[in-house]
Amino acid sequence: MHTVKQAEKIILDHCLEWGLETVPLEQSWGRILREDLRADRDFPPFDRVTMDGIAIRHERFAAGQRRFPVVGVQAAGQPPLNLAQGDACLEVMTGAMLPEGADTIIRYEDLLLEDGFAQVQSDAVQLRQNLHTRGIDRRAGDLLVPAGRQIAAPEVATAASVGKAALRVARLPRVAIVSTGDELVEVAAAPLPHQIRRSNVQAVQAVLAEQLRMEGQLFHFADDREQIAAGMARILAEFDVVVLSGAVSEGKFDYVPQVLGALGVEQCFHKIAQRPGKPFWFGHFRRRAVVFALPGNPVSAFLCAWRYLMPFLRRSLGQEPLPPAPAAVLTTEVAFKPALTYFLPVKLCFANNGTVQAAPLPGHGSGDLANLNDADGFVELPPDRDVFLAGEVFPLLPYRSNHALR
Amino acid sequence: MHTVKQAEKIILDHCLEWGLETVPLEQSWGRILREDLRADRDFPPFDRVTMDGIAIRHERFAAGQRRFPVVGVQAAGQPPLNLAQGDACLEVMTGAMLPEGADTIIRYEDLLLEDGFAQVQSDAVQLRQNLHTRGIDRRAGDLLVPAGRQIAAPEVATAASVGKAALRVARLPRVAIVSTGDELVEVAAAPLPHQIRRSNVQAVQAVLAEQLRMEGQLFHFADDREQIAAGMARILAEFDVVVLSGAVSEGKFDYVPQVLGALGVEQCFHKIAQRPGKPFWFGHFRRRAVVFALPGNPVSAFLCAWRYLMPFLRRSLGQEPLPPAPAAVLTTEVAFKPALTYFLPVKLCFANNGTVQAAPLPGHGSGDLANLNDADGFVELPPDRDVFLAGEVFPLLPYRSNHALR
Repeated sequence: MHTVKQAEKIILDHCLEWGLETVPLEQSWGRILREDLRADRDFPPFDRVTMDGIAIRHERFAAGQRRFPVVGVQAAGQPPLNLAQGDACLEVMTGAMLPEGADTIIRYEDLLLEDGFAQVQSDAVQLRQNLHTRGIDRRAGDLLVPAGRQIAAPEVATAASVGKAALRVARLPRVAIVSTGDELVEVAAAPLPHQIRRSNVQAVQAVLAEQLRMEGQLFHFADDREQIAAGMARILAEFDVVVLSGAVSEGKFDYVPQVLGALGVEQCFHKIAQRPGKPFWFGHFRRRAVVFALPGNPVSAFLCAWRYLMPFLRRSLGQEPLPPAPAAVLTTEVAFKPALTYFLPVKLCFANNGTVQAAPLPGHGSGDLANLNDADGFVELPPDRDVFLAGEVFPLLPYRSNHALR
Repeated sequence: MHTVKQAEKIILDHCLEWGLETVPLEQSWGRILREDLRADRDFPPFDRVTMDGIAIRHERFAAGQRRFPVVGVQAAGQPPLNLAQGDACLEVMTGAMLPEGADTIIRYEDLLLEDGFAQVQSDAVQLRQNLHTRGIDRRAGDLLVPAGRQIAAPEVATAASVGKAALRVARLPRVAIVSTGDELVEVAAAPLPHQIRRSNVQAVQAVLAEQLRMEGQLFHFADDREQIAAGMARILAEFDVVVLSGAVSEGKFDYVPQVLGALGVEQCFHKIAQRPGKPFWFGHFRRRAVVFALPGNPVSAFLCAWRYLMPFLRRSLGQEPLPPAPAAVLTTEVAFKPALTYFLPVKLCFANNGTVQAAPLPGHGSGDLANLNDADGFVELPPDRDVFLAGEVFPLLPYRSNHALR
């Protein structure tokens, strides 16, 4: 049985590549950028006025001049005026180019403007103050955003500023999300006492949508060997990523591994030394598609989607390596005997000392879906220990990142 | 001039309400749930088998019996069989109902199955082991998810499990995002030396989309009083939330506050004691619409959107109160003299001790858009101090929450 790390490595060794596409800038957020964004000119592109006020030659101020005749107004969006008369000034607006011949901006707050003259009220006027110097942020040609970045608002703004009305991003794979199990009925159905509604596939679909703007198509098969075989044959022909839920364990009707094998899907591993999610099965189909066969228990399926499917997708889409995993401080002692990595649900909060605190919320095991609503993530407790002390720090897998960090 | 806290309070005192709508479950992620989700029956709804194996009567095991004839198979999704013969067993599959007359499950790993008999290989068999007891997670009628939750994958799964194929969520407001400024050209245009491309409005649009699945319609007006007045009159008639960028400061062409006043928009405040974003203007139009007039500098506009617009929208949509703001440890000393709250851009990382570390990335001020690509958030440094020491903890405003917490 593989460890979590081994399983993760095998999965990441099977990453795929689905090419690139171009999307309009306003639809690019959340996608993985696959081109470098470079400065098309200097940032800022000219010596830019940063305060409303007047532009002067500093040497006049240094020589003692405090009263300047106002000979014009330099607005934003205008070509630069020329301050030809060295002892005069021009009114200047935020965002305007520095007028030619001027080198220093004095803001209105430090002026008295009257009868066409500006009287400087401050003795602390520095050469080139209130100017954003051309090229000081970035030089034309400089890298602004590297390929591989997941596009968020700053990247959208930067792309706009360098004239990219459309961006090259990773094309998204075709994803099938398949539930199996005779006990499952549709969401809109009224289940009989021995039945429950499908919910894992919708959860995986939501994770894909909210994390990567991916769509997954839903399927359902009964616990019937022929139905699964026929359905999976069609799905393998049409989809790049297949996420199954259920029927991967030791049960008499757990046909999935068998059927996949018969269809030519090569098993990479079956079972990971972890709880929940031990029966997880992973394989590939002619190196063209992959199959994530998640266990059917809701917490198991959810954990495996976050811990294994998401990193696989991010790397396959060409996302830049993520920073080291977050970590959290356990607030209470936890005992866990089995020699398995224990993904413990936790409620997160930020303490005054800058730590992320993880309060254990173990729930009632891998079937306890409702418990996921109360928790914010999982801490990953290593398999070689039985007791995990309050105050110890463990890797954190947050699944409500918006919530936890706001 | 208002403090950050005062400004925030005034804005939150002007929250609006845009009603409710029903959306299909698969489109509900990211929206604000406006109905309670309750258990429609017990969670789990029956004594549920959690391991593949056999079901027995524990009293027979306790009496020393180790060999049980297998008299049938209880699959998931079937009505319960009856273990009428007390010294026999039934094979049971994960997800199945506990057969009537049985009370304990022994997993395959602890069995030898041969010739129609199951030989128990373990002496540690507990009464009711490997069962997920009916109602232990939640009772029928229990609250699973409170109204006000931003819907993420666990909520989608829970809604599916209780039969909600559609959810009541907050209706989204009509949002206009308006740039002003003669220096601004379209993204696809080639700017002249004194011009730059629009980028603030796209950034705000992206924040709305990625945080709340909201769409904003973009507008642009030149620095022309009549054009702004006519355009704003139309926008105020049609939109609930108006986000402006630029023309709110002291400049000769900063017509926005004036024009808004003339149109009947009531100013709540102008200017906040903060950097960046000091010229921020906020008002309301007959308590039916609000106007966020952000400064035109890109870092200012971006910060104000996160710090003021987002909390306003979240509360107006009925989102439950968020947990206390996150906090981060400053990695290096920072000096900042002005008596203003300083929102310092920072690069985040998680340290081994469970803290979030914020490395200052001040950039070159409020015009330095490119710097936002390298940072992950802002720390909020209070106005009553000049020096902020390495190791001190300050409130954190992360704008790349996905990135920072993965």
